Amino acid sequence: MSGTVYLVGAGPGASDLLTVRAVRLLSEADVVFHDALVHPDTLALAARAEKIPVGKRCGKHSTAQRFINKRLADAARGHKVVVRLKGGDPMLFGRAHEELSYLRAQGVRVEVVPGVTAAAAASAEIGISLTRRGAARTVAFVTPRVGRGERESTWIACVLAADTAAIYMGAGEAEAIAAALIRAGKPASTPVALVEDASLPGTSAQYATLGELPRLATRGAPTLILLGEVYREALLEAALFQRLRASQRL
Amino acid sequence: MSGTVYLVGAGPGASDLLTVRAVRLLSEADVVFHDALVHPDTLALAARAEKIPVGKRCGKHSTAQRFINKRLADAARGHKVVVRLKGGDPMLFGRAHEELSYLRAQGVRVEVVPGVTAAAAASAEIGISLTRRGAARTVAFVTPRVGRGERESTWIACVLAADTAAIYMGAGEAEAIAAALIRAGKPASTPVALVEDASLPGTSAQYATLGELPRLATRGAPTLILLGEVYREALLEAALFQRLRASQRL
Repeated sequence: MSGTVYLVGAGPGASDLLTVRAVRLLSEADVVFHDALVHPDTLALAARAEKIPVGKRCGKHSTAQRFINKRLADAARGHKVVVRLKGGDPMLFGRAHEELSYLRAQGVRVEVVPGVTAAAAASAEIGISLTRRGAARTVAFVTPRVGRGERESTWIACVLAADTAAIYMGAGEAEAIAAALIRAGKPASTPVALVEDASLPGTSAQYATLGELPRLATRGAPTLILLGEVYREALLEAALFQRLRASQRL
Repeated sequence: MSGTVYLVGAGPGASDLLTVRAVRLLSEADVVFHDALVHPDTLALAARAEKIPVGKRCGKHSTAQRFINKRLADAARGHKVVVRLKGGDPMLFGRAHEELSYLRAQGVRVEVVPGVTAAAAASAEIGISLTRRGAARTVAFVTPRVGRGERESTWIACVLAADTAAIYMGAGEAEAIAAALIRAGKPASTPVALVEDASLPGTSAQYATLGELPRLATRGAPTLILLGEVYREALLEAALFQRLRASQRL
């Protein structure tokens, strides 16, 4: 018996933002390996599957990844439908490459099911497009590496070159991110939107300038930092609302 | 009576790559306004809706857009659920901004439902991640503007700054795109993947170097150009396969 491993995008969080194909595969799955961040409602769609959390502990990446690779291949030898569920889209910051390479080298059939990425969900949530005709035609998707020296600063160059940037996995590093971008020449006045838990009931959005970004309070939820001129209007509105509230004690 | 306009991402093409929420809204819709490229199987999900194609004719953008805006607002005054269906994700090159602004100004309730973007679907199709731990941490999503002078060249700077680039709506301009990028300093040896009709039955992927890109034949289907070192291995394999076939008459 030899099954297929499906690398499936779980989308941003809300279980109705999974694709129809993802839901079907979850319902058929014998085993589901999932990241720690996948929502319980989403896991519940895999009614008959054994569910195995494989969240990686910080600082132990390579060992954990080798272990996951091997478990996926083993599962495919004993089951027909093995789902590897990853937050967002598997091919964008989903570390799919290592699993794909290993499974192919082992002769295991593998298919990828794309998902809705966090930047799309956050943009839908706040109702502001990443692009705008005539104003924003380029978007950078990056993960920051702060304080790692020149060799690791391509994320900064990429953010500087793009009209709009979506910074993934930057939560907890807002201060270092803002400092690095401003030092590299991004104006401190650049508008920023910070979106937490996009698509989930407790979602929140805050607007600030890049210079003010470190002062925003976050809850430690999955966070996306968006920056660019497309957020200018929302920033001005938020600032106006705050001034009104302060003056009128709303 | 006052309804809601839902700006819904139709995803890359395959109707089972719509989100569950998109399918539900289509089934409930009274009216669906859709782009020309939305697949008939997807439209069929809106069983009880009046379906109105609103594809824009080239060169008549602004008039057509004003007309669409007005029709959306009018529809929301007479119907409960109005769906504006856009290929891919509405907030990434979906020209959602103009419709959102107009509808809000008119006091029409509007919600955005994110979708799977073409780059995610193409990456799933070819099984190559846009990012790779240690090798590709930044991705640029751009639409090219070729031959429009310095002021319009931010897409080039953005592609040059990113490890991986996804060029949307570049079909038919491969020669000008390759020439512009090489002139700006992108090595002609950069690996390129050209994916047509991602997620649909007739999908195809071709690999080449940036210098060879203009020589690839395309069918005029929706096309995504991907470039970066992450495609090196697939390019080498494709070249090896071609040499083998030529020598062995496979």
